[in-house]
Amino acid sequence: MAHALRLAERGLYTTQPNPRVGCVIAHGGEVVGTGFHQRTGEPHAEVYALREAGTRARGAAAYVTLEPCAHHGRTPPCARALIAAGVDRVVVAAEDPFPQVDGRGTASLRAAGIAVDVGLLREAARELNIGFFSRVERGRPFVRVKLAMSLDGHTALNNGESKWITGEAARADVQRWRARSSAILSGSGTVLADNPRLTVRWPEDEAFAPPLRVILDRQLRTPAGSHVLDGSTPTLVLHDTAASCADNRFERVERMVLNTRNDALDLPAVLALLAGRGCNEVHVEAGPTLCGALFAAGLADELLLYIAPVLLGDSARPLLRLPALGDMAGRWQLRTVEQRMLGRDWRLRLRQA
Amino acid sequence: MAHALRLAERGLYTTQPNPRVGCVIAHGGEVVGTGFHQRTGEPHAEVYALREAGTRARGAAAYVTLEPCAHHGRTPPCARALIAAGVDRVVVAAEDPFPQVDGRGTASLRAAGIAVDVGLLREAARELNIGFFSRVERGRPFVRVKLAMSLDGHTALNNGESKWITGEAARADVQRWRARSSAILSGSGTVLADNPRLTVRWPEDEAFAPPLRVILDRQLRTPAGSHVLDGSTPTLVLHDTAASCADNRFERVERMVLNTRNDALDLPAVLALLAGRGCNEVHVEAGPTLCGALFAAGLADELLLYIAPVLLGDSARPLLRLPALGDMAGRWQLRTVEQRMLGRDWRLRLRQA
Repeated sequence: MAHALRLAERGLYTTQPNPRVGCVIAHGGEVVGTGFHQRTGEPHAEVYALREAGTRARGAAAYVTLEPCAHHGRTPPCARALIAAGVDRVVVAAEDPFPQVDGRGTASLRAAGIAVDVGLLREAARELNIGFFSRVERGRPFVRVKLAMSLDGHTALNNGESKWITGEAARADVQRWRARSSAILSGSGTVLADNPRLTVRWPEDEAFAPPLRVILDRQLRTPAGSHVLDGSTPTLVLHDTAASCADNRFERVERMVLNTRNDALDLPAVLALLAGRGCNEVHVEAGPTLCGALFAAGLADELLLYIAPVLLGDSARPLLRLPALGDMAGRWQLRTVEQRMLGRDWRLRLRQA
Repeated sequence: MAHALRLAERGLYTTQPNPRVGCVIAHGGEVVGTGFHQRTGEPHAEVYALREAGTRARGAAAYVTLEPCAHHGRTPPCARALIAAGVDRVVVAAEDPFPQVDGRGTASLRAAGIAVDVGLLREAARELNIGFFSRVERGRPFVRVKLAMSLDGHTALNNGESKWITGEAARADVQRWRARSSAILSGSGTVLADNPRLTVRWPEDEAFAPPLRVILDRQLRTPAGSHVLDGSTPTLVLHDTAASCADNRFERVERMVLNTRNDALDLPAVLALLAGRGCNEVHVEAGPTLCGALFAAGLADELLLYIAPVLLGDSARPLLRLPALGDMAGRWQLRTVEQRMLGRDWRLRLRQA
């Protein structure tokens, strides 16, 4: 199963909106077939593994990181393919909560007389598809908020200068997190301040499914000529019903009206909309207001925090704008799930405790 | 020499103002004597090791982490003792810059026909006595600034509540850094806000030399009844010439007048004063103003930073008050020398890059 998970990881940047899935077929002690899902519309992991195994799949055991599908989607059901190939046993890491699967895959295998075990390395399998599970089980994407700060908790000087807080290794690392996401979310304040591209800068030979750029721009303030309006990659601008724009600056992007709440676009509605479009992981690169609002609303699932070993002083810009706390009991408690050094900088990943 | 360094570390909490020194005497492949310096006025490491070795010191090699002394201080010169014992060879990790030694120790050994090698594990030996070397070579202590902050760079809520930002393991760890220091430095603002004891809370069976409490209190604002005035441990209050106090609140502590610079006590003068009193490592636990001033003046040699995985929001108190930067080129660049987790919290040690 660990081998199957490593195979699944090879689809990290390409399978969305589908989950990353790997499969290993073993006959006796020998691996006779391996496969992983590469991209939507292409065969599932089991199909590649069965093809490679050929007739040696008969009497073999199949290790699959996600419950095999039982329905005709864009491809025929994998449970049926496993039955047809004559495997004896199927070991599944995690159940597929997708409504058209959700137990039907394992049920149909068992009905065909195949021994099925579920739960081996389940946590690792769920972690690999944390966004997929979030979307299907909670109706919203997994939200990862990326921030880069100085040691004393500031993201930019007071004059807005923010270039090169972190080093090259940290900035390259950010591209990988962008690339694995289904959407990159930002706000018009960040667009006005930094005019970011919010695309993936990536080695030419590595494939990825380009994430959707999503700009929260309630009042349609995004200036003409902004990189995010250049049409180079699918882009969605969300605004409220009162906003309008007389010129054609938004002609290369999609625009949608959304409800507001307390003078801001309704964040749960934003996430529900993105889930409806198949977004699994949403990568947020925004300013202290939007990032703070996501944390304050309990909608930030993970903080991807780069810390540079520099001091900027208290007149520099804050990391997050959060409502003032009356006492320590109200603090936002996180737990560290991973840490590493990238050059001189630190990368921490933290989640709600 | 690694063994000698481990021995030297056993004096970490007790030798100040003296350096921590260890000695191993080896005859052939066998260790025949070990020793370390325990506290001022007691024998040096070499004396303990020679006592243990007895006649087997003759023809042996002595490994000493610091150049043996050549002068009569509170104890007779160790170089003479090594010569008298008949050792063949002396390996020294680091030269002793103390004016009364400074090469005389190795010179007297060589003059007696003993082979002397200097420099084995020199960096580790200097690190162990970083404060001693700073005091003797630079005329000021090594200054370690301890701060504890939330992930977003705040030390307390805006109402001043700061208890329990970090967990128990981090707070216990702080006691070790206090205990190894010669002085604990704070400001009257911190005394007014938190009324800290600034003593070492320590297991009963572990010895340490109690650090001097030093309070920068230019205007003598420290209130009567403050813990730092309780006389439970030697305490020094520094103020300017204009300040006066009509009552007897300072009767249990020592007071001294110091020059001011820009409406604050002159920090280089504070450090020169402490060096003159034999302070090697100075541990700073103070607020954002004093800590910021030490960094801004380039006087903070090390940042001992505890980071708790909580978010407090931008209305909470800042980590450091520093002059506003005009551009990123002016940032204070540090480098990480160590990191570890303490419970849920992070401890980083950083120095000037």
